[in-house]
Amino acid sequence: MLFFVGLGLGDAKDITVKGLEVVKKCKRVYLEAYTSILTVGKDALEEFYGREIILADRDMVETNSDEILSGAEEEDVAFLVVGDPFGATTHTDLVLRAKEKGLDYRVVHNASIMNACGCCGLQLYNFGETVSIVFWTDTWKPDSYYDKIKCNRDRNMHTLCLLDIKMKEQTIENLMKGRKIFEPPRFMTVKQASEQLLEIVENKRQEGDNSLAFTEDTVCVGLSRVGSDAQRIVSATLQEMTQIDLGEPLHSLIIPGEMHSLERDMLLQFAISDKTKNILSSICI
Amino acid sequence: MLFFVGLGLGDAKDITVKGLEVVKKCKRVYLEAYTSILTVGKDALEEFYGREIILADRDMVETNSDEILSGAEEEDVAFLVVGDPFGATTHTDLVLRAKEKGLDYRVVHNASIMNACGCCGLQLYNFGETVSIVFWTDTWKPDSYYDKIKCNRDRNMHTLCLLDIKMKEQTIENLMKGRKIFEPPRFMTVKQASEQLLEIVENKRQEGDNSLAFTEDTVCVGLSRVGSDAQRIVSATLQEMTQIDLGEPLHSLIIPGEMHSLERDMLLQFAISDKTKNILSSICI
Repeated sequence: MLFFVGLGLGDAKDITVKGLEVVKKCKRVYLEAYTSILTVGKDALEEFYGREIILADRDMVETNSDEILSGAEEEDVAFLVVGDPFGATTHTDLVLRAKEKGLDYRVVHNASIMNACGCCGLQLYNFGETVSIVFWTDTWKPDSYYDKIKCNRDRNMHTLCLLDIKMKEQTIENLMKGRKIFEPPRFMTVKQASEQLLEIVENKRQEGDNSLAFTEDTVCVGLSRVGSDAQRIVSATLQEMTQIDLGEPLHSLIIPGEMHSLERDMLLQFAISDKTKNILSSICI
Repeated sequence: MLFFVGLGLGDAKDITVKGLEVVKKCKRVYLEAYTSILTVGKDALEEFYGREIILADRDMVETNSDEILSGAEEEDVAFLVVGDPFGATTHTDLVLRAKEKGLDYRVVHNASIMNACGCCGLQLYNFGETVSIVFWTDTWKPDSYYDKIKCNRDRNMHTLCLLDIKMKEQTIENLMKGRKIFEPPRFMTVKQASEQLLEIVENKRQEGDNSLAFTEDTVCVGLSRVGSDAQRIVSATLQEMTQIDLGEPLHSLIIPGEMHSLERDMLLQFAISDKTKNILSSICI
């Protein structure tokens, strides 16, 4: 049997009791280690579970999954995923490969940023399509997520922006020379995401766009390390967000749409400045 | 301190290790018992936690929350919620009342149907607004969720339909006479929801609507008891859904929008009939 076990979002203790039982009884335990992170590393998980963990990078999961699935007809194998196994990153490809081999699988669900972001007070019902904001380079500045945010805002919906993670980057030189030397991991901050969003808005303005999806003064929500003791939630204008350091990863950003009074009142609790408070208070509800 | 603890979706063991620690140490433990249910009842939870639980009905949470919050300045109080505390039902009103009293609070997140529904293979990214389908009566047949589903489908987005729960209904006679006699709880099934949706479509057709959001032949996903061992997932046409018994509550229904190939391949795994398989296979991706 192949078990997909969600680890939740904080530390080792965010696994469910059911999930912990699975981890303890499985023959092999893999940790998907390339799309998200907890606030603790592999060592802390191994200590808490009392089990050895095998790190599974993208290569292993996407092109070498036979290793993970091997023997799972007779033995139990666990595949651990930060958040929920079918949350922000979905592992349906591994499910399908397991089914192809005639393997059974079970899922132990857990919190994902896709639902835990509701802790800011914005109702999950009122979220539209989720977008991913990727790191720009000097030559590649995709902005297709802007249109999705606009589409959500036009429908009065909130937008959860998942921020880019680069886990095993190679420099172009190392890539060309086939050297498996990797750069340190990078995690996009709310500050960086806000800067990119404002740059897109500025470009639209210069193109004469009169119906911008949002502006510097749009109140947004920045979240970091949701679900951990070190969690932070702030509401601030997009301009203010470019000045805020929300600390260690992971960060997420929400661009709210129309708010109900309870949603507005919750964002007031997290307001970073008088300016933000004034904007929120002046919203007609 | 007031702790909001998500219980997840299946049974007692779906609480997180962190959540269980909180429950064990809190002075009083309330269970929000009117918007969702686990596959086990209060007794099973009390036995597993080794703690007495106080059932909190809508009255207590919405109008008599002082009892819950009382003493939480010095003592720890836990408020347990099926799923995630800010998932399908959000408890921001209780947060705000706690803050008004100067109380601190913490959240222990867990899986919600809002993210766990990803187990069917449809990607959470591609979901639009979530809708609630309510029980019709002879005289009250609201259908505003149809427009929201249409709006999502027009944008190629999936729609999660949460199905109605009636926990403490009174007959009109008992209500008039002020008798606190309650009807047995009712939980809408996928079958019932599909019947209502098809009736709406039939009405639209008779009104001459030529751009229906969906038809009898639209392949949908029915889910029951997600996260429990007795979980069921089926993909079937909406017409077929009206003939399927997915067993005990809770049920949810998804109306997919445009599918990617992996999403389609996952739905094929859950297809109930050759007809559904043929429709899914013929989708151009």
